[in-house]
Amino acid sequence: MNKHQKSFERLFKKHEKIVTLKGILSLLNWDQETYLPPGAIDVRSHQTAELTALIHKMKTQANFKNNLEELINLKTGKLKTQKLTDIQKKTLELMRKDYVKYAKIPVSFIHKISKTSALAINAWADARKKNDYKIFSPFLKKIIDFNLQKADFLGYEDHPYDALVDQFEPKMTAKKLHSFFQKLKPAIKNILDKIQKKQEPDTSFLDGPFSKDKQRVLAKVLLDHLKLDLSHSRMDESAHPFSTGIHPKDVRITTRIDKDLLSNITSILHECGHAFYERNLPIEYFGSPICESTSLSLHESQSRLWEVFIGKSFSFWKFFYPFVQKHFGSLENISLQKFCKAMNKVSPNFIRIESDELTYCLHIILRFELELEMLEKKIKAKDLPEAWNHKMKVLLGITPKTNAEGCLQDIHWSCGEFGYFPTYALGNVIAAQLFDTYTTLNATWERDLEDGNLDPIKNWLKTNIHRHGRYYSMDEIVKMTTKRPLSITSYIQYLNNKYARLYA
Amino acid sequence: MNKHQKSFERLFKKHEKIVTLKGILSLLNWDQETYLPPGAIDVRSHQTAELTALIHKMKTQANFKNNLEELINLKTGKLKTQKLTDIQKKTLELMRKDYVKYAKIPVSFIHKISKTSALAINAWADARKKNDYKIFSPFLKKIIDFNLQKADFLGYEDHPYDALVDQFEPKMTAKKLHSFFQKLKPAIKNILDKIQKKQEPDTSFLDGPFSKDKQRVLAKVLLDHLKLDLSHSRMDESAHPFSTGIHPKDVRITTRIDKDLLSNITSILHECGHAFYERNLPIEYFGSPICESTSLSLHESQSRLWEVFIGKSFSFWKFFYPFVQKHFGSLENISLQKFCKAMNKVSPNFIRIESDELTYCLHIILRFELELEMLEKKIKAKDLPEAWNHKMKVLLGITPKTNAEGCLQDIHWSCGEFGYFPTYALGNVIAAQLFDTYTTLNATWERDLEDGNLDPIKNWLKTNIHRHGRYYSMDEIVKMTTKRPLSITSYIQYLNNKYARLYA
Repeated sequence: MNKHQKSFERLFKKHEKIVTLKGILSLLNWDQETYLPPGAIDVRSHQTAELTALIHKMKTQANFKNNLEELINLKTGKLKTQKLTDIQKKTLELMRKDYVKYAKIPVSFIHKISKTSALAINAWADARKKNDYKIFSPFLKKIIDFNLQKADFLGYEDHPYDALVDQFEPKMTAKKLHSFFQKLKPAIKNILDKIQKKQEPDTSFLDGPFSKDKQRVLAKVLLDHLKLDLSHSRMDESAHPFSTGIHPKDVRITTRIDKDLLSNITSILHECGHAFYERNLPIEYFGSPICESTSLSLHESQSRLWEVFIGKSFSFWKFFYPFVQKHFGSLENISLQKFCKAMNKVSPNFIRIESDELTYCLHIILRFELELEMLEKKIKAKDLPEAWNHKMKVLLGITPKTNAEGCLQDIHWSCGEFGYFPTYALGNVIAAQLFDTYTTLNATWERDLEDGNLDPIKNWLKTNIHRHGRYYSMDEIVKMTTKRPLSITSYIQYLNNKYARLYA
Repeated sequence: MNKHQKSFERLFKKHEKIVTLKGILSLLNWDQETYLPPGAIDVRSHQTAELTALIHKMKTQANFKNNLEELINLKTGKLKTQKLTDIQKKTLELMRKDYVKYAKIPVSFIHKISKTSALAINAWADARKKNDYKIFSPFLKKIIDFNLQKADFLGYEDHPYDALVDQFEPKMTAKKLHSFFQKLKPAIKNILDKIQKKQEPDTSFLDGPFSKDKQRVLAKVLLDHLKLDLSHSRMDESAHPFSTGIHPKDVRITTRIDKDLLSNITSILHECGHAFYERNLPIEYFGSPICESTSLSLHESQSRLWEVFIGKSFSFWKFFYPFVQKHFGSLENISLQKFCKAMNKVSPNFIRIESDELTYCLHIILRFELELEMLEKKIKAKDLPEAWNHKMKVLLGITPKTNAEGCLQDIHWSCGEFGYFPTYALGNVIAAQLFDTYTTLNATWERDLEDGNLDPIKNWLKTNIHRHGRYYSMDEIVKMTTKRPLSITSYIQYLNNKYARLYA
C-alpha cells in the first residue's frame, strides 16, 4: 500500500465510525417514537443531544480535516493522487463536500439555533393549543433571521433560499422550484375546477369502525404482500408513521393503527417505499458516503411512488382489495370501483397531512411562497396569519377558521427548518417521471400489479435508483433512468390522466 | 467559584458524558434482546464494539486523567483541596478508583481478550451443540491464562482470584467466599438429605398448558401489583429475561412467556427487584459514580429478595394466588398450600438455571471451587469434564450424562469471566440478612404481604439500600442496615426454617 492508500484507509475508518454512531442515533430516535417510557423523554433528548454533538465534533475536528486534506484539496476539490479507485475518488469527493458544508457553519451558531428551536417548538405547541399566534410570532422572527444568517454562512449566488433548500436537495434552487410550481398551479386548479362540478363520491363506508386488532392482522398481510424482508426489518406502531435506516441491514418502519383503515394502509405503503431504498443501498461501500441515499426528494419519490402511484392504482387494489374485504365484512358489498373512487376523493382541506393527492402540492406551494416572502422580508413574522389565509383562499379556495388549522399546523418552522417543504412536492414530481418511464418500458406493469407480482417494479427501482446510493446525484439518477432531465411534465400528465379517468 | 471548583465542574461534565453514552450502550443491548431484526445481529455487535471502545477511550484519555489529577492524587488518593462538599469528595474518590482500575489494564490486552472471547463463544456454542468438549478446551486454556495475567495487572495480596472477583464485588476475596461456602455446604446437604427421605410433592398441575395470551395478561396484573412505574419503565419479552437501567428514569425489564407459568412469574419478580434498585438510585447525583449501584452482589440480592424471599413465600401467594386461579381454571381445585409446596420443590438438577432454591448455591460453589483450582493449575483445561463430574457427584449426588449438560452448560467462561459466579450466591446471602432484619423490624410484614401491600418493603429497601447508590460499599450498607457485618448465618437459618416448615 502506498502513502495515499494508507491515508485513505485511515480516513475511511474514521468516517465509518461516524456513520456507525449515526446509526445509533437513528436507533435512539426509533425508540423514542415507539417504546420509550413517556417519563424519560427529557433523558432521551439529552442522550440525543450528546451523541449529535459528538458526531458533529468527529466530523469537523482537525484530525479528520487533516487526514482528508492529505488526499484532496479542500478548496478546489482537486485530488492529490490519481492512484485510487473510482469508488475511492467519489468517496473523497463526497466527504469533502460534506466537510466543507459542516465547517462553514460555526458550532456556536448551531448551538444557538438548536437552543432557540427547542424553545420555539414549545411556543409553537402552546400557540397551537391556545390558538394564539402571538405566542409563536417572536420565535418565527428569530428563525427567519437565523435562516438568513445560515444562508450567508453556506453561501449562494442568486437567492438565500438556494442555500437553504440545498441542505435537503443538493443543487435545487428557488428559481427551478418556481418554474415547476408555476406550471403545476394552473394544472391542478384546472383539474380541481372540473372535479368540483362533479358529484362527490360516496366515502361513508370508509368511516368504519375497523377493529384495531383486525387492522393489525391486515397490516401484516400487506407487509407480506410487499415482501419487506423481516430478517432485516420490522414494523411497529407510532403516533406518526416513519421509517428509519439504522443500517442497510436494519431498516424499520412504523404504522398508525386507529379507526381509519386507509391511514394504516397508506402509511405502510409510504414507509415501505422509504425502507426499500434504505435496504437496497450499496452495502458493500458501508462507511463511505456512497452508501447513503442521494437526496431527500429522491427518498420521498420512493415513498410516494408506493403510496400513491402504485398504492392508489386500480391494478394494485384489484389484487389486494379481496384481502381487505376478507377482514372487514362491512366492505363485502362495496365494489372495487367504488372503493378506489372513494380512496381517491378530492376535497380541499385546511390541513396538509389530511389532504388528498391532488391538492397536497398546493399546500407545499403555499409554504414555499411564504418562505420566500419571509426571507425577502416582504412578509413580517407577525403578519403571517393574514398572508397564510390569503394564499389559502387563492390556491385552495378555502379559509381556515383558526390559526391552529392555518399557519400553526406544521411543526417544521419551529424546528428552524426553511427549504424543507419543497422536497415533499419534488418527491411527487420525481416519482411521476420515474413511474412514467417504468410503465413505458414495462408493458405488463398493470397485469403484474393485478397478479400481486411486485417483484418487477421492486427490482427496477433497486437497479436504477437504490443501488447507486450517493454515487450519482438526484438529477443524474433521474436523467440516467428516464433519459431526460427532471421536469414537471410527467406529473401534470399523470394528474390529468388520472382524474379524467376517475371522474370520466 | 474557585480554581478547584471549576476544575471539578469540568471533570463532572466529562464524566456525565461517559455515563450518558453508557446509557445508550444499555439501549443497544436492550434492543438487541427484544426487537432487533435477526439479520442485523452482526451490525449490532459492531455498533456495540464501537461505542464501548469510545467510552473506554473517554475514561482513560489524558484529558480526563489530567483533570482528575488536578483534584486528587491518583497514587495516594489524597484530595488536593478540602473545599468540596462530601458528595464531591466521594465522587472524586470513586472516579479515582475506577480510573486506576481501568488504567491498569493495557488497551491492547483488552482487545486481545475480547477477540479471543468472541472466538471462544463460538467454539463453546459449537462444542455444546456437538457435545464435544475438545472444541472448547483450547479456548478455556487461553482464558485461564488471560485471567491470571489480568489478576497480575490488577494486583492482589493473597490470591489472583481476589483481583478477579473484586471486578464484580469490590473487596470480596477467595478466603471470605471459602469461609461462607464451607459453612453453607454441610447446611444445604443436611437439609437435602432430610428432604430426600420425604415424599416428593405433586407438581403435575404446574405442567400446564397455560395459554400464552393469558400469561401476558397475568404478567400485567403482577406488574400492577408490584407497582413498577410504567411512566419510567416497561416490560417486554425476550428469550432470557433481564433488566436494564438506561437511566434512573428509564429502566426496563423483560420476561419470558412459554408453557411454564412459574418461569414468567419468577422472572418478573426477579427483574423487578433489579429494576426497583435502578429506579431508586439517587438521581440528583446523575453523572457522578454515586448514582450507580454499589455492587453486583447487592444488585442480585435485590432480585433474589423479590424472586425468592418474597416471591416464594406463603404470604405473598395468599394475596396473589387467586389472581392466578382466576386466569387459569386448571388451578381452581389446587389449594394454596399445594401450589406453594410444588413451587418450592427440591430436586437436584444438572442445570444451574433450572435448579431449585436450595441446591442452586451448590452449583455456584462447584464453579467457584473449579475456578480456583484452574487458576492454581491444579486442574488443566483439558481435564475439566472429569473434575466437573466428580464435584457434581460430591455436591449434588448426581452425574451429568453429557458435557453439554455438564461443564459446557454456562456461557460465562467463554466470555472470559472468572470471579463472576459467586455474586449469584452472595446475592442470596445478602438478601437473607436484609430480609432477616426487615422481618424483625416489621412485625406486620406477613400481614402486609397477605393484604397485597408491598409499599412497606419497597420503601424500606429504597431508604436503606437503593438511595445510597455507590456512596457506601456493599459491606457498609449491609452493616448499616442490619447492624452486623455480612455473614452466612441468616441464610442458613432461613433455609433451615423454610424447609423444616415446608416438609414438617
